[in-house]
Amino acid sequence: MTDPVRIGLLGRGTVGAAFAELLDERADAFAAATGRRPEIAGVVRRSEGSFDEVLEGSDIVVELIGGIEPARDYVLRAMAAGRSVVSANKQLIAQHGDELFAAAARAGVQLRFEAAVAGVIPVIRVIQESLGATETAKVFGIVNGTTNYILTEMAKTGASFDDALGRAQELGYAEADPTEDVNGADAAAKMAILARLAFHTPVALDDIVYEGIEQIKPDDISYAKELGLSLKLLGVAERHPDGISARVFPCFLYGGHPLAPVEGPFNAVMVEGPSIAEITMSGPGAGGVETASAVLGDVASIVAGTAPVHSVGERLPIVQDLSSAFYLHLEVADQPGVLATVAEVLGRNGVSVRSVVQRGLGDDARLVMVTHTVDEASFAAALEEISGLDVLRSKPRAIRVIEEEAPVSGPRVGEWEAMR
Amino acid sequence: MTDPVRIGLLGRGTVGAAFAELLDERADAFAAATGRRPEIAGVVRRSEGSFDEVLEGSDIVVELIGGIEPARDYVLRAMAAGRSVVSANKQLIAQHGDELFAAAARAGVQLRFEAAVAGVIPVIRVIQESLGATETAKVFGIVNGTTNYILTEMAKTGASFDDALGRAQELGYAEADPTEDVNGADAAAKMAILARLAFHTPVALDDIVYEGIEQIKPDDISYAKELGLSLKLLGVAERHPDGISARVFPCFLYGGHPLAPVEGPFNAVMVEGPSIAEITMSGPGAGGVETASAVLGDVASIVAGTAPVHSVGERLPIVQDLSSAFYLHLEVADQPGVLATVAEVLGRNGVSVRSVVQRGLGDDARLVMVTHTVDEASFAAALEEISGLDVLRSKPRAIRVIEEEAPVSGPRVGEWEAMR
Repeated sequence: MTDPVRIGLLGRGTVGAAFAELLDERADAFAAATGRRPEIAGVVRRSEGSFDEVLEGSDIVVELIGGIEPARDYVLRAMAAGRSVVSANKQLIAQHGDELFAAAARAGVQLRFEAAVAGVIPVIRVIQESLGATETAKVFGIVNGTTNYILTEMAKTGASFDDALGRAQELGYAEADPTEDVNGADAAAKMAILARLAFHTPVALDDIVYEGIEQIKPDDISYAKELGLSLKLLGVAERHPDGISARVFPCFLYGGHPLAPVEGPFNAVMVEGPSIAEITMSGPGAGGVETASAVLGDVASIVAGTAPVHSVGERLPIVQDLSSAFYLHLEVADQPGVLATVAEVLGRNGVSVRSVVQRGLGDDARLVMVTHTVDEASFAAALEEISGLDVLRSKPRAIRVIEEEAPVSGPRVGEWEAMR
Repeated sequence: MTDPVRIGLLGRGTVGAAFAELLDERADAFAAATGRRPEIAGVVRRSEGSFDEVLEGSDIVVELIGGIEPARDYVLRAMAAGRSVVSANKQLIAQHGDELFAAAARAGVQLRFEAAVAGVIPVIRVIQESLGATETAKVFGIVNGTTNYILTEMAKTGASFDDALGRAQELGYAEADPTEDVNGADAAAKMAILARLAFHTPVALDDIVYEGIEQIKPDDISYAKELGLSLKLLGVAERHPDGISARVFPCFLYGGHPLAPVEGPFNAVMVEGPSIAEITMSGPGAGGVETASAVLGDVASIVAGTAPVHSVGERLPIVQDLSSAFYLHLEVADQPGVLATVAEVLGRNGVSVRSVVQRGLGDDARLVMVTHTVDEASFAAALEEISGLDVLRSKPRAIRVIEEEAPVSGPRVGEWEAMR
């Protein structure tokens, strides 16, 4: 057996401890797969340990310290010293990707970060390696487990956002300060990473427009259920003829959509392209040992000599002029002609209605509708006009809807015989 | 730019032609990702072209010729001559894996075969690379698109097996001779490959016990629907304390199961293990361009210098003594005490019943039940005894059921805070 591979571990919180334990448990399998036995050469924590000493004694550096500094400084110094690095740090990769990828290329080392997006789901490897030379048209999915747990809980129990968040915190699915999860910022960082890799273009965190789920009301979810819809917080990155778009927003899905059954703290990512139709991957989005597994796979690939297929082209423009279908919730005066008035405004702005539910009497009358796909500017114009109508009793609520009911069809007729 | 990478193409049927076209279309992206521009150096077809000449002029050989010979001979000769090989040939890998992996190791070249199992779904790469050092407990899924299309059609329209097969043939989802698809042999070859990689052990095609779907009746599907079940042809490979099992059989799933919504010609594979919970991957299981995409990903990885993490340990015993829940369909005389008689036989053999549907009158009376999980030998003993009962009007029909209603839960409490 050749020399062991010495791993310098930065950070020993929940994931760091799980990684050290998993590495020990899987040392034989790791050695069989890669030809070298792994060992933890040293650990640096925020409060103790010398980074220089650990770097000196390591072949590979694993960064699980989180946050930007000192993680960024350590990762840059490790790569400059010729060490390949594995990181689970989504903020670091999302905010400093350009600098880090350039530093890795300059030093001729690898930077791997499977655990930074969607936990153990191997979406980074699949996009970089399986699909590295394939045209990717769209990457989207559920990349934040906290919000998916909260939305699932609201849908199942009718709980308010605040109550569902409290339950998520009790169960350890949400942090004491859940701001970045519930406002969409965490998902935005992950989508910046996925968009960069899928479209081979630099993507800045500021390029991602995001909305969270704090404003979602239980009755939006229950009305939409009657229309066959379920609510998810989606990250959506798409290639357009003249650029790309990448956004995070709450969104209704029809029952037949592959992401509709993804519940609780699970994550799921779909990749679409002209030569792959669609690939869907789902699994646990977080957890100490699951995250540690993703890190272990990256470390093994580096030791086995696996280089990710990676290329970055020129920066593509961010497209803002997009289309979507919408759910629209209106609290209205219960008087004749309200529906006609609203329909007239929508029609005049080019918004066509797919389904309507009218409910209640007196001050509680509600008009809930789903539109067909329309350009967002037209819908916004209609919405502003509707907001000013006398018959409105409160601010209208609008949520995007993905109109497709089912996945794209299978392989085309006549292509089937060749291979199964 | 360095020298182009010269690809020798064996076979130019549907997939071969799609691959040549895709390679041409994606040449720039391939060059950006790998540093070398790809070109087809030569093509060998069954009826024309010299293998020796094509080999001489190639850096990498892509085998899309299908069947065992001359594919096996060509692949062995290419590897012996120092060429890495990409193959989409499931029968070749399943039947001659030991010989081929040994030859690749001896020559120090790569043998990649993502397209051999589940089309464009990157299950080979994920199991070999992302999970190469991780413990895998179970790999299972829908790995034959023809049968999944037929079962979907039967469930949706009430069609007989023969009619649904005819429709599949019209649409190009089934071959003129569909035998290997509908009898489970095709899925068995794929499961032999997946079991080998997941459990790091040699697995022979003969190790896989398989059943097909030719005996499935429309009323099995419609009765089971009332119990919330849908029917799939599953391949299931599992690690046991004393060995492994790998089988293919038709199986009912409850609505909450991640594989239940996979319809039509789509494939889906799930991987479970103690440190990953479960990962589910789905997508088109075949098609010319989709298969070509999987081949392209393998070629790009070889050029980029990516080595799969791969190890094979000693041969593990095949375990036959397994447990399952069952669906049981009995055509019985409509007379008092029949249910009690059947229940007594089941109970005496240790089979406990989860749900029952009783239907019809006179000669058409049916008893449809789902059991809890029981060891298969006990169920077989009960079934034999029931077959001999006077009150039976025809041979009983039994189909396995996966009892879990929902995926395993997410990350454990307290592990969540560390990373999202």
